[in-house]
This record gives sequence, C-alpha cells and structure tokens, in this order.
Amino acid sequence: MSASDYAALTPGSLPARLGGLDLLTRRIGPAEGWQVEEVGDGNLNLVFILRGSLGAAIVKQALPYVRLVGESWPLPLKRSFFEYHALQRQAARDPGSVPELWHFDEAQALIVMEYLSPHIILRHGLIAGKRYGGLGERLGQFCARTLFRGSDLSMKAAEKKADLALFAGNIELCDITENLVFSDPYFEAALNRHTPGLEAAVARLRGDLALKVAAQHLKMAFTSQAETLLHGDLHTGSVMVSERDIRVIDPEFATYGPIGFDIGMLMANFLMACLAQPGHAESPGARSGYQSWLLSVTAAVWTSFEAEFTRLWREERQGILYQATLYEDQRHGLASEIARGERLGAIWRDALGFCGVEIHRRILGLAHNADFERIDDVALRAACEARALALGTALIHSRHTLSGTQALLDLAARVNTEDHL
Amino acid sequence: MSASDYAALTPGSLPARLGGLDLLTRRIGPAEGWQVEEVGDGNLNLVFILRGSLGAAIVKQALPYVRLVGESWPLPLKRSFFEYHALQRQAARDPGSVPELWHFDEAQALIVMEYLSPHIILRHGLIAGKRYGGLGERLGQFCARTLFRGSDLSMKAAEKKADLALFAGNIELCDITENLVFSDPYFEAALNRHTPGLEAAVARLRGDLALKVAAQHLKMAFTSQAETLLHGDLHTGSVMVSERDIRVIDPEFATYGPIGFDIGMLMANFLMACLAQPGHAESPGARSGYQSWLLSVTAAVWTSFEAEFTRLWREERQGILYQATLYEDQRHGLASEIARGERLGAIWRDALGFCGVEIHRRILGLAHNADFERIDDVALRAACEARALALGTALIHSRHTLSGTQALLDLAARVNTEDHL
Repeated sequence: MSASDYAALTPGSLPARLGGLDLLTRRIGPAEGWQVEEVGDGNLNLVFILRGSLGAAIVKQALPYVRLVGESWPLPLKRSFFEYHALQRQAARDPGSVPELWHFDEAQALIVMEYLSPHIILRHGLIAGKRYGGLGERLGQFCARTLFRGSDLSMKAAEKKADLALFAGNIELCDITENLVFSDPYFEAALNRHTPGLEAAVARLRGDLALKVAAQHLKMAFTSQAETLLHGDLHTGSVMVSERDIRVIDPEFATYGPIGFDIGMLMANFLMACLAQPGHAESPGARSGYQSWLLSVTAAVWTSFEAEFTRLWREERQGILYQATLYEDQRHGLASEIARGERLGAIWRDALGFCGVEIHRRILGLAHNADFERIDDVALRAACEARALALGTALIHSRHTLSGTQALLDLAARVNTEDHL
Repeated sequence: MSASDYAALTPGSLPARLGGLDLLTRRIGPAEGWQVEEVGDGNLNLVFILRGSLGAAIVKQALPYVRLVGESWPLPLKRSFFEYHALQRQAARDPGSVPELWHFDEAQALIVMEYLSPHIILRHGLIAGKRYGGLGERLGQFCARTLFRGSDLSMKAAEKKADLALFAGNIELCDITENLVFSDPYFEAALNRHTPGLEAAVARLRGDLALKVAAQHLKMAFTSQAETLLHGDLHTGSVMVSERDIRVIDPEFATYGPIGFDIGMLMANFLMACLAQPGHAESPGARSGYQSWLLSVTAAVWTSFEAEFTRLWREERQGILYQATLYEDQRHGLASEIARGERLGAIWRDALGFCGVEIHRRILGLAHNADFERIDDVALRAACEARALALGTALIHSRHTLSGTQALLDLAARVNTEDHL
C-alpha cells in the first residue's frame, strides 16, 4: 500500500473503515452500534475511543504533522510503526505493562488496542492530588524489565544489533528530543516559551556555561549510548492509572539510548508534579503531605528500578556483557556484584542529568506540562517553575557526586521552601 | 546474484575471472600478461597481488570462514561489504589515507584496489627497527578526521543514524572483537594460548577482580557507545608504510563505537612494539633508542589526534552536538572550549582502557602479533610479554586518573625495566 492511501480517520469515517476487522467486531460488537469519540490531548496524534455493544477499543492514528504545531511541522507516519514495535517488545519484556495490542495497519499508521477503563492519565490524577498505591514501585519495575531485557545484558547480540538498526530509523522523533530537550531550553530558540516573571531565572540558566556544557554531554549520551530500547517519552502523561492498575502508553519516541534516560525523565515528572502542588492547593499548605508522597514516589522509582535490575542481573544476565563465564563460573561472583554496583552508579548519574534537562525543557521549551500550565495564577506558577528550574540545574551539576535518593529528596524539599525567581 | 555464485579466487583462476574489468585492464594492462601472487598473511582473507604490463593491483577476497582457524569457523562474506563501505568513508573523510578503490563485487566479496609500492606492513618495519617520519602524527590525524567526521559532531543526524544502522549489520566481526578482545583473555577460554612461562602473570591477571570488572565496562562501551564509525582493527598490521607515505588498510571490523577505541588499539600496538624490542635487539640494549622512539610515536598518536580533533571541533562542528548556536553565537565560545576539553578527557580515558585490553588479548587470546611471536627465545618472549601484560593492567586501572601522555610514557618506560613474570 502506498503512502497516498493514507487518510486521517474522523469519528464519522471510522466505523466504515474499521468495521470489517473481525478481531475488533468480535471484541466490541458490530460496527453498526459503534460510538466514536476523538479524545487525543497529546502533542502529536489522533486518538479515538470506540465503544460497541460488547466493549470498547482505542484507535490511535499518527498524523503526517505535529498536532501541537500544525501542518507547518511535518512528521512521518512511520512513527506509528516504531510505536507498534516498541509496544510489542514492552509487552513481551514486562507482561501487563502496556495496553493489549489488537491490530496494526502500517499504511494507515494506526494501532488498535485495548481501551483502559476506568483509567485516567496519571498526570491528571497527580494534579487532582490522588494517590496510587505502589506507583513508583511499579514504574521502576517497568523500567528495569524493559531496559534490562532490551540491552546487551540480556539479548542475543545479533538481535540487539538488529533492533538497534530498526529503531535507528526513528529519526524525526529523535530529532524532536535532540532539539527540544537538549538544546532549545539553553538558548532563545524560536519555539521556546516561558511564564512571565521567569526572566531572571532564565537569564541565569542560559548564562551558566557549565550547565550548557553538561546539557550537550547529556545530548551526546542520548544520541550515542545505544544501551537499550527506551520508551523515549516516559512522563506522567504516558502513564494510565486506575485504583488497581498502572499501564504505560505512547512509546512512539522509542529508540536505543542510555538506560538512565527513561528513569530520569520519569523522576523529573514526579519532581515537577511535586513542585507544582502549591499551585493546585485548596488552601496554602494543604498539599504539603501530598508533596511528601510525590517525593516518596520519585525515590521509589529508583529504588524499585535498582531492586528489579539487581534481580534480573542475578537471574537473567544471559547477554554478552558481564558473563557468568567470567565471574560466577570462576568463583568470582563478587566481581559480578562489583560490576552491578558500578553499572547502577553510572545509570544513576545519567538519570540525574536527564532528570535535570527534562525539567528545564518542560518549563522553557515548546512542550510544557499541565502540572504547571494549569496554575492560573501566573505569579504563583512562575514561583513554582523557578524552583523546578533551580532543582534541574542542581541535579545536572551534582550528578556525578549526589549520593542517592535521600540526597535527591533533600534537594527537592529544600528548593520547595525557597524563592528562586 | 545469489550467494551460491561465490567462488574463492586462485592465482590460476583470477585472470580469467577479472580480466574483463575494463577499469582494471586500463590501469594494469591486459589480462594475458598478468602475474598473480597470493600474499595474504592476515587472519581472515585471501589477498592477491596482480601485476600487469602497466601496473599492479591488490585483489582482496573474503573467505566464508576464518583463515586463521579454518572452515570450522564460518564467517560471512558480507564483511567485504562493510570493508568497502568503510574504505569509501575513510577516503572521503581523510583523503589519501587509504588505498584507492577500483572495484567492488559484493557477491564475490572482493575489492580491487591500488597496489601500494614500495610499502610494507608497518609491523614488519617496527620489528626490523625502522623509523618513519611523522608516523604517530599522521595516524593521530587519521583517527581525528575519520572519527570526528563519522560522528554526530559532524554528520547530519539522519545520515549518522543510517550509517549506524548499516554497520550494525557487521554482527559476526563485532562478535569476534566482543569475545576475543574483551572476554577471552580474562578466563581460560578454549581459543586462548600463551607463551610458556607466563603462568604466574596470567594467574594474577585472571584473579584481579577489579580488572575483570573494568574489562566488561569497556566491552559495554564498545557495544553501546555508538559515537562514530570505527576502523575497528587499527593495529600496526593494518598500516602500510613507505619512506614517504602512510596508508591504513583492512577496515572490515568497521562498526559504530567509542571514539577512543581506534586510538587505544593503535597506542597499544606501538607500546607492544616497544616492549618487544629486547627480543629483536642485535645485542642487549641495542634497541633502547628505538624503544624511546616508539614511545614518542605512541605519544604522538594522541597529541596529533588531540590537535586535529581540536581543529575540526573549531572549524567543522556542524552536527547536532555542542552547536555553535548554543555557544559561539551566544558569546559563550568558552563553553565550547570547556566542552571540547571534557570530551577529549573522556576519549583519553576510554582509549587507555581499550589500549589495556588490546595488549592483554594479543598475548593471552587467539590472535597474537608478530612483535612478540617472532621472538624465538621463549623465555625472553615471556619476559617481554609479562611487562606488556602489567602495563595493560596498569592502564586499565588508572584510566580515570592518568594525567596525560607523559604519565603514560613514564609507566611504559618503568615497566620496561622491571621483571613482571
């Protein structure tokens, strides 16, 4: 099928175009009874909820441009192909972590999958002040399983190299990350915007030469450290939660990159959720307990990642790195544990750096997040954002020396009490 | 053409099979007058010198197995494809650094190229005690140009990702490096062999847990740090020299990897050449001045790499990393220089580590080098090799702290005076 066959779906056209899919009608009922609602609130794609007499489905279709910006910024449909392949791998590497995949149409750049209900986007829950049991633990586990099992620690070398080559084709979405995350925030790029009142904080940040150097070292790590298949965009808008279930969605930015990337991005989004809480508090201080909970979730992401990574290292290290042949089989199990500790140290340092740049770009770049955006009081929003910027800078500068999660929480708690405008 | 059309050339069959190539007959004369000699002394391939009435050519053909081992170790013909593509890129990135390419036949896995005369393999010259003006300088320059220009510092991101994907197909040759360089030397692998008398030194090395950890960190860097297109096997047997010319050959191990890899491997081979000299001396001490020269060449590889990398950083940094937009254009040229210094520091540390493992594997693994192998006196050979092993270990352990080339030379000079058996 050629690219010219592609046509964006509408609620009106959807039943006629997908009604012939047996797999879909068996699960949700015949097309005559379908109700279709377009619900996409992300930056890039169309998302439809499709309800039938027997059940519901999600239909996600890529648009040939960036939805947030419009047709002036074309973006290839092929991202849907990478999303589908990433979802497949995540489902295999951490069963139950992503929506069940029902159908993929490459030419139409559409994926049909399980409709998660009564799930909501995690970010919305965090703005509303909701708590979810085991949240950080589950997401840390997801990171460990997908990142360990997509790397040379686990895969056959030939399969890892084939996947590296496959996902190296996800050029345009990597380009977005490369520019929007790692470069734009650090100079007055055309697509940037920031809350009025942040001018002094922004000037300090953009005048910090060591920070600008570090951000580019991190960019080089992102473009060159092809350690594992990343989700690539693992923020709290890419997680769906209910009281009993946690799922990860939207891996269209998937690419091979550093193990610390997804973890750092996730921690950044919990830290931002925390620092944004004064803007959502019912009364001054009403969210301080909730802020502490968000800090504990941030820490749990790491501690859970570390624990599961350790378990996998000990039980599933079947790749070409740190082989048992060299260690355990030579009665040098201690060397294996030394190597694991040092490797986790390197991942931690990377994660702190990526955490810092993710915070910066969500406040200074193109793609902001609702945690801050939904604070109507502009002065209050700027005050919250300035604290987050300062924390991001601190994490980048201290990434080689910060000792662990408690030190990280101490920094965040401290910055939360200060004026960084 | 299918793989079954492949047939290994022989001196007898070569004129009939290549005599129809116009490009070749124009350059070296008609096939009727050709004289063919098989001269391959490497580990993997057939190499023919083809002499005609007008000139000469080299015909290099891959065999479907490892020549050093035999048909029991199959190796895909496709390595010839990667060698050809690597040679093309090296020729473009550092004109005049490789033999001129005349013809490539993918199905026959053969490359026809310029015959270099009166060049000899550099390693043979070093064993004979010959000096070549500007040797380290030229090779350092080659590393800087090919490694800088094959990276995200220089290339368009999409082209770099396409090349990363292309060379990710060079699976089997990477597998050789992954096993033979980074793992086998550190345990009693089946293919290993070493000089009698080294037993105590080998036991110390294989009992050094921190070393075994570091070697695997370096292996992970090799498999994951996809920074640039490497030569992949840049030892002194991959360099041809005359009094006036220096060329690099045999890049069939080409893959994306860490910038420091080629540099470290090259330095390792000069250091081994140096430490092997007592085995080639006409009388005791007769080669000590030559040893000093080899140390100066080792240092020159790095200083020349550093100087040329610096020039390219300042003049050709057109890739997506450390962009002028962020630095020079913001009057933050200082940040660009800080970044360059830190990046060179990281390359230096990597290079020292790779230097160490390359020394170890040439003495303990499958593929030894003539520098040591041609020392007939087994006890003397073992004494030289033990010093090299100790130096390799020292470089790996001190790679994060060793201050520069002088410190490196001091270690090598010191080890050369000691007994490390």
